[in-house]
Amino acid sequence: MIKKILFSSFVLFTVLAYAGAKPKYVFLFIGDGMSTPQRMVAEEFSVKIGEGELAMNRMPYQVNTRTKSSNSIITDSAASATAMACGEKTNNGMVGLAPDGRRLESVAEVAKKSGKKVGIITTVTIVHATPAGFYAHRRKRGQTYQIALDLIASGFDYFAGGGVGGRHDEKKDPEYRGNVFDLARAAGYNVVDSREGWAALKPGSRSWSYFAKGAMDFSIDADGSQPSLADLVEKGIEVLDNKDGFFMMCEGGKVDYAGHANDAATSIRDVIALDKAVKVALAFAEKHPQDTLVMVTGDHETGGMSLGFAGTGGKFKVELLAGQKCSAEHFSSVIKDMLKKNPKLEFEKVQPLITEKFGLVFTDDRSNPMRVRSAERKLLKNAFEKDRGYVKKQVADTTAHDVGRRYVFASTVKNVLAAHAGIGWSSGSHTALPTLTTAQGAGADIIVGMQDNTDIAIRLKKILSK
Amino acid sequence: MIKKILFSSFVLFTVLAYAGAKPKYVFLFIGDGMSTPQRMVAEEFSVKIGEGELAMNRMPYQVNTRTKSSNSIITDSAASATAMACGEKTNNGMVGLAPDGRRLESVAEVAKKSGKKVGIITTVTIVHATPAGFYAHRRKRGQTYQIALDLIASGFDYFAGGGVGGRHDEKKDPEYRGNVFDLARAAGYNVVDSREGWAALKPGSRSWSYFAKGAMDFSIDADGSQPSLADLVEKGIEVLDNKDGFFMMCEGGKVDYAGHANDAATSIRDVIALDKAVKVALAFAEKHPQDTLVMVTGDHETGGMSLGFAGTGGKFKVELLAGQKCSAEHFSSVIKDMLKKNPKLEFEKVQPLITEKFGLVFTDDRSNPMRVRSAERKLLKNAFEKDRGYVKKQVADTTAHDVGRRYVFASTVKNVLAAHAGIGWSSGSHTALPTLTTAQGAGADIIVGMQDNTDIAIRLKKILSK
Repeated sequence: MIKKILFSSFVLFTVLAYAGAKPKYVFLFIGDGMSTPQRMVAEEFSVKIGEGELAMNRMPYQVNTRTKSSNSIITDSAASATAMACGEKTNNGMVGLAPDGRRLESVAEVAKKSGKKVGIITTVTIVHATPAGFYAHRRKRGQTYQIALDLIASGFDYFAGGGVGGRHDEKKDPEYRGNVFDLARAAGYNVVDSREGWAALKPGSRSWSYFAKGAMDFSIDADGSQPSLADLVEKGIEVLDNKDGFFMMCEGGKVDYAGHANDAATSIRDVIALDKAVKVALAFAEKHPQDTLVMVTGDHETGGMSLGFAGTGGKFKVELLAGQKCSAEHFSSVIKDMLKKNPKLEFEKVQPLITEKFGLVFTDDRSNPMRVRSAERKLLKNAFEKDRGYVKKQVADTTAHDVGRRYVFASTVKNVLAAHAGIGWSSGSHTALPTLTTAQGAGADIIVGMQDNTDIAIRLKKILSK
Repeated sequence: MIKKILFSSFVLFTVLAYAGAKPKYVFLFIGDGMSTPQRMVAEEFSVKIGEGELAMNRMPYQVNTRTKSSNSIITDSAASATAMACGEKTNNGMVGLAPDGRRLESVAEVAKKSGKKVGIITTVTIVHATPAGFYAHRRKRGQTYQIALDLIASGFDYFAGGGVGGRHDEKKDPEYRGNVFDLARAAGYNVVDSREGWAALKPGSRSWSYFAKGAMDFSIDADGSQPSLADLVEKGIEVLDNKDGFFMMCEGGKVDYAGHANDAATSIRDVIALDKAVKVALAFAEKHPQDTLVMVTGDHETGGMSLGFAGTGGKFKVELLAGQKCSAEHFSSVIKDMLKKNPKLEFEKVQPLITEKFGLVFTDDRSNPMRVRSAERKLLKNAFEKDRGYVKKQVADTTAHDVGRRYVFASTVKNVLAAHAGIGWSSGSHTALPTLTTAQGAGADIIVGMQDNTDIAIRLKKILSK
C-alpha cells in the first residue's frame, strides 16, 4: 500500500510539475537517420565496452514517432525537419514551407519571438536540411546559399558545427548578395572558423562558428582538432544562458551518413557522441530541474539496421565492433592513397592494416571470433583488386553515402566485420520505421499520446510560446 | 492560455484517474515475434487497403521494452514470457522459474489469488512458451505434458486456442498420470474441442477449448472453421465477466512463425487479427472506462524486418502484399501435393497459380508493379525444380520455421513479392530489437518509465494484487 502511494505520488508529482509549468530551457536533440535500432545497437555496445547505458534511451517518457512526408511514405531529412520544427507536413526536399509554398513558423522562431535565445548545432553543414528546418524557408534543400541568407536573417544567437559546403557556386545564385560570412559579419554575427576563436566566445554574443568546410568528422575518425557535440552544447549553454531561457537544437547529423554506408561501428560512435551531448544537457537540467526539458528524437531510420543477422546464425555480438578504429569512408581514402603511391601493392601487405583498423585477424585459430574465414579473405582480396582497378583508371571518389558503390574494398572489410558482430542492414536508403522520441524533465509528459513528427513542434510550441 | 489549461487538464485527468485506481479488468495482448516493424508494416498495409490504423499503435502510452534474458542478448519466447508474466529474468528455455529453479509467481496467479477470473488465449498450442509463462513452472519449455499438468493445476477459468501438440509421447513422460484432457475433466474443466461446444460455454464455467491439434491456422489461411482471436476474446469476456473482474492474456502466437519464415503478408494478417482482438477489448473498455486497462506488447522481434529494401531502391510499397492470398507454408504444401500427383508438372502450368495466390503477373507490361522480371522468373523456375527434386526423393516436410530451408519454391515466390513491396528481412531468427509496449485506459500510465520486459509484470502486479 505504501509502495502504491509512493508510486502514484511519483507519477502525480511528475505531472503536477508540468501542469502550468513552462520550462525556460528546452533542448531538442535529433539524430539524423537514428531510430530505435541505432539507439539500441549503440547502447548495447556502450554497455559491453564498460561505458554504460545511453541516457537518451533511459528517459521516462518514450513514444514512437511516425515520419511520412506529404508526398512519400519514406521521408527525407528536409520534410522531416520541417515537420518536427514547424508542425506541418511538407514534400520531401522542402524546408520550412508547406507543399503550396506557405511559410511555416518553427519552434525556434517561436522561442526567439517569446524572448528566448536560440542555438542551432550540427555535425554536418549548418545549411543542411535538418538545422535549416529550424530557421529557413526554401523550396529546395539544395538552395544552400539562400538557406544561409535565412540563417543570417533569423537573428538566432549561436550557430555551431560544419561549414556551408554546398555543391553550387554561390556567385551564380540568383539571390547572390555577397559571401555569406561577410554578410553575417555585417549583420552583427561573430563569425569564427577556429576552435580557439569559438572557445573565446563570450556569453551574450551572437556567433556563427564552423569547424570544417563541409561536414565535421565522424566521431570514430576524430583527431581532436574539432570540438565534440558535447563541447558544442556545453559552450552553447554558456553563451545562451540568460534569465528568459533558451531553445537549443543539436543534431548528430552523421549517424545518417553511417547508415547510408551501412557502417555500424561508425554509426555507434556518432550515436554515443550525441548521447554525451545529451548528458551535458541533463547535467544542466539537474541544476534547473523545474525549468529544463530535454527531448531526443530522430528524423527517420536509415539502412534498415537489425540486431541480429542470418549470416551469423542470428547471433548478436556487437562488442566485436570495438575492433573498428576508423570509418569505412576514411579507410577507403587511406587505401586509395596507398594504391596511388604503389599501384602494385600486394593484398598481403594490406592485411596487417585490416587487423589494425578493424580488428579482423588472419589466423588459423578457429576459436577467435575475429578470424577471417577463407571465403571472407577471398571476398576481401577481390574487393581490393577492384579498388586497384578504379585507382588505375582514376575513377572519381564516392561520397560517404556511396561507400561500397564504386570503391568496394573498405566497405567489404566493414561488411565482413558486421557479419561477425551480427548486424544486418536491408537498405542503403532511409526506411519508414518510426523514430523514437524520448523526453525527461519539466514538461516531458507533453509527448504522451504523440504519434507523428509534426506533434513534436505542435507540443513544443505550447511550451515555447509566450 | 485556454488551450494550455485544457491540455494540462487532460494530462492531469488521465493521471488522477489512475492515482488510487485499480482497474478491475486487465487485458494483456502479446504478439509473439512482434515489435515496432511488424506493427508498423501491418498498420501501413491496413491503411492502404482502407481498413485504417491499428488501435494497438494509437494508444496514448508507449514505451520500448528491452528483452534480453539471463543468458542471452537475444531472448527466446520462454524467457521473455517468464519476464513479462513473473517480473524476473530467466534463461532461454525456462518457464516460470528463475535460473536457479526458484518458482516465480505470475501476474495471472496474483490476479487469481486476489479473486479475479483468469483467461489465457493463444493461436499456437496452449502449452507453448508464451501462454505457459503465465501458469507453468518448468525447467524446459519442451516439457509440454508437465506444462499441461500445470495448466490444470492453475485453476484458471478460460483457456482457448491451439491444442497441446508437442513432440513427445505423453505416455513416456516421467510424470505421466493419464491423458491431459481426461485429467482436466476430472479437475472440473469443461474440455471442448469444437467451435460449437465453445460457443455454447456459459458465464462462470471453467473451460479449456482447443481448435486444432497443434497451432491454429494463420489468419491469411483461415477458412472459418476456427474462431478468430477476436472471437476468442469476445467469448472470454462473456464467460469471465464478474463483479471482481478478470485478467486476460491473449497471444497472437503465429506472428513469430511468419517472422521465422520471413513471410511479410502472413505476418501482417496475423498482426491485424491481433489488433481486431484488441479492438474487442477496447469496446469493452468503453463500457467500463474507469475499470479497464488494455496493454499490448511483444516478446521479441523476429526476422529483422525492415520498411524499405535495398533491392528495390529503398522503396516501400506494402500495399502490393495484398496480392498474397495464403501463407508461404500453405502454398508450399499445395505445390508439394501437385508434384506428388504429377511429377512432370511444368513450371509454366504453375504460373497462373502464382498469379492467383501472390498477385505476381507474368506480363510484358513494364508499368505493372507486380510484373515478374525475367531474372525473377529464372529464380522461380530454379526453385520449382528444386522442390520437384525433393518431392521425388521424398524429403521430409519442413516446419513453418524452416520455410525456404529445404522446399524453396513457395519461399522464393514470397521473397520475389516482398522485394516488389520493399520489405527487407535480415534474419530467420529472433533479434535483440526492443519490443513496443502500448497501453490505454485506467492505469495505462504505469508504463511510464518502464525499460524492461520484467517491468510489465512488476507494474501489473501493483494493479492486480489485493
